Amino acid sequence: MFYIIGLGLGDCKDITVKGLEIIKKCDRVYLEAYTSILTCGTQALEEFYGRKLIVADRDLVEQGADDILEGAKTSDIALLVVGDPFGATTHTDLVLRAEENGIEVRVVHNASILNAVGCCGLQLYSYGETVSIPYWMDGWEPDSFYDKIASNFRNKVHTLCLLDIKVKEPTLESLVKKKKEYMPPKFMSVSEAAQQLLQIIKKRKEAQVELEINEDNLAIGLARVGSDTQKIVACSLIEMATVDLGGPLHSLIIVGPILHPLEEDYLRKFKL
Amino acid sequence: MFYIIGLGLGDCKDITVKGLEIIKKCDRVYLEAYTSILTCGTQALEEFYGRKLIVADRDLVEQGADDILEGAKTSDIALLVVGDPFGATTHTDLVLRAEENGIEVRVVHNASILNAVGCCGLQLYSYGETVSIPYWMDGWEPDSFYDKIASNFRNKVHTLCLLDIKVKEPTLESLVKKKKEYMPPKFMSVSEAAQQLLQIIKKRKEAQVELEINEDNLAIGLARVGSDTQKIVACSLIEMATVDLGGPLHSLIIVGPILHPLEEDYLRKFKL
Repeated sequence: MFYIIGLGLGDCKDITVKGLEIIKKCDRVYLEAYTSILTCGTQALEEFYGRKLIVADRDLVEQGADDILEGAKTSDIALLVVGDPFGATTHTDLVLRAEENGIEVRVVHNASILNAVGCCGLQLYSYGETVSIPYWMDGWEPDSFYDKIASNFRNKVHTLCLLDIKVKEPTLESLVKKKKEYMPPKFMSVSEAAQQLLQIIKKRKEAQVELEINEDNLAIGLARVGSDTQKIVACSLIEMATVDLGGPLHSLIIVGPILHPLEEDYLRKFKL
Repeated sequence: MFYIIGLGLGDCKDITVKGLEIIKKCDRVYLEAYTSILTCGTQALEEFYGRKLIVADRDLVEQGADDILEGAKTSDIALLVVGDPFGATTHTDLVLRAEENGIEVRVVHNASILNAVGCCGLQLYSYGETVSIPYWMDGWEPDSFYDKIASNFRNKVHTLCLLDIKVKEPTLESLVKKKKEYMPPKFMSVSEAAQQLLQIIKKRKEAQVELEINEDNLAIGLARVGSDTQKIVACSLIEMATVDLGGPLHSLIIVGPILHPLEEDYLRKFKL
């Protein structure tokens, strides 16, 4: 059997009882470590589970699927994933690969940012399409996420923005070499995300495009949701550009044009 | 301290280790039992936790907040909620009430249908606003949810439809009496939801309105997501009107106009 087990968002103890029981009986347990991170480290997980974990980086999950699935027809193999198993496309792909090879698959769900974001008090049913904000690089500054946020705004719903993570990304120079070298990990902060959004707004204003979202729009910054050090701040987008919420992971919400009175009440405690 | 603890979606063992530890040390533990249900019953939960639960119905949660919160300043009280704590507005309200009374609140997240729906293979970031489909009653047949589905479709995203639950609803007749009488619980099935949608489509066709969604639109029916008896079916809306997925809870997805190749691959196994 091949298990994909969600770890939730906070620390070791956010795993479900079902997930923990499975981990204890598996022959091999992989920890997916590049689409997200837990605030506790790998060592803390190993101590809590009382067993060794195999850290699975992007290369292993995307190209080494056969290695991960090896033996799963006759023994139990698990892949641990921060949040919920279906948060990333690669995990869906892995389920398909397993089933094509006649391996039974079982999924153990857990909280992910998509529902835990409810902690800021905006109603979960009042969000539109989720967007991802990527790190810009020289000459590559995509801004289509702005259009999705604007479309949600026109539909009177909020937008959850997931912020980029670069973990074990090969350096551009090393891509042409035999031996890959990796950049230090980086995690986009709410201020960096707000700054990119403000740049898009500025550029479009200069082009005299009519804008739904501008620098005064209400935004919510969230850090380390579900952990003991969770932080939430509600302020204008331009204020968010200078807010420091500390270590990763961060998420940003662009609030829609209408707030329910209960949402309004709840947000009050997070105002800058 | 007042704890709100998500139970996830399947059975007893879908609670997190953190959640279970808290339940064991609390003075009183309430189980919210009207916005959703677990496939295992209250008794199974009590046996697994090794303690008594106080079943909290709508009256208690909405009007008896003070009873629930009593003593939470100096002792530990927990409210257990199927799925994630922020799935329903009443829970958000309860957090506010607690904080207004100077009671510390801690939330333990878990999976909810909003992320567990990823199990059907549609990418979680390709959903628009979530809609609720209510049971129609004589003379009350709201159809605004159709417009939200249509709006999502125009934006090229999928729609998750949450289906109505009637648990401990007072009968119309008893509302004017002193003693409330309750209707038997009912849970909308995917076929009932599809039938209501088809009626809206028929009515609008007769009115010669141009339609985004019609009877041939691809839909996905999901039952008991996250439990061992989970079932998923992908078919046209008109076929969905006669599909029987068994016991509650059910959810329905109206698929957007564009499928990613991986979504297409994944859906294949659920085709009728």
